[in-house]
Amino acid sequence: MVGRFIVFEGIDASGKSTQARHLAQQCQGLFTFEPGDTALGGELRRWLLDAATPMTPETEALLMLADRSHHVATVIAPTLASGRHVIADRFSASTLAYQGFGRGVDREKLRVATELAIGDCRPDLTLLIDIDIETANERRARNHEDRFESGDAAFHERLRQGYLAMAATEERWCVIDGRGTFDDVSAAITAAVAPLW
Amino acid sequence: MVGRFIVFEGIDASGKSTQARHLAQQCQGLFTFEPGDTALGGELRRWLLDAATPMTPETEALLMLADRSHHVATVIAPTLASGRHVIADRFSASTLAYQGFGRGVDREKLRVATELAIGDCRPDLTLLIDIDIETANERRARNHEDRFESGDAAFHERLRQGYLAMAATEERWCVIDGRGTFDDVSAAITAAVAPLW
Repeated sequence: MVGRFIVFEGIDASGKSTQARHLAQQCQGLFTFEPGDTALGGELRRWLLDAATPMTPETEALLMLADRSHHVATVIAPTLASGRHVIADRFSASTLAYQGFGRGVDREKLRVATELAIGDCRPDLTLLIDIDIETANERRARNHEDRFESGDAAFHERLRQGYLAMAATEERWCVIDGRGTFDDVSAAITAAVAPLW
Repeated sequence: MVGRFIVFEGIDASGKSTQARHLAQQCQGLFTFEPGDTALGGELRRWLLDAATPMTPETEALLMLADRSHHVATVIAPTLASGRHVIADRFSASTLAYQGFGRGVDREKLRVATELAIGDCRPDLTLLIDIDIETANERRARNHEDRFESGDAAFHERLRQGYLAMAATEERWCVIDGRGTFDDVSAAITAAVAPLW
């Protein structure tokens, strides 16, 4: 039997990465992340984060999709085929949220290009760990990271609304309230994934 | 006035690169090539040519498109806007030929992803320098390169037929018989581009 493919999505400081790692441990699945969890991906991540190489949102999206395509072919699909579960911190919805809703790249074209990248490797469940921008701001300040600047806040609000729109209209999404304690959120995730096992 | 954008396409050993450089000299245009004529592109070229990193044709296509998107944004569009002509050795049709016709990637999806990559930066003219596979083989043998193996020959025949199909159905293409002498081919190109000046 093939493994289950569960994806965590959300804005920065939503707590999704911690929860994704925790679920992977619980179900002995493979934890993986984007962009970058392959040798090619690591190189692309370096380029994507290199402020000295400004690039358009379209170039950014295509690099993300190339990374995702390689990640699916070399890591995700073979692991699922071996029967092991895969728990991913970000997948296709991140590109639609960040480059589409956030930066205004044509979302219909992004969807078609995404089909090139992932083929029939679709998540069994996408968990949106949803928090409001104020909560994200407080958490970032508490962790001695910067607060979102006002431009950042508007950008992150577009991301959040984009994610909520996808969760409302697409199949196999579940919205988890990310504002509770670690244990609260983890319990909600356990309940949401239970039907998959 | 903006510059003209002229693209050379064709299979290996067609002579297109030599002719493209020659035309760029004649019209004092910028000669450029794909993949790789940017810092990011050079890095991607290294990955694309690295046999130790096997990748699917879809990943290959998405990397090519990311490279093209960056090439358009940072080199081609600004040069054209400055009024200078751009003569490119390969552009969008290469991805449709190599990854689409050659390796079987869905061509309709490739077209949509190409629109993401190039926006409204379309060639004023695409020159297909066409030679048959036997002539390509003879030229490669003469230059002490390997002949195409039989698998290669079938692949290059698919490329050639793909290029001819695009030239027959798309706008602003011109097929140049590449079998003649350098001067013959150059004269045909001069005649084909004359209406653009």
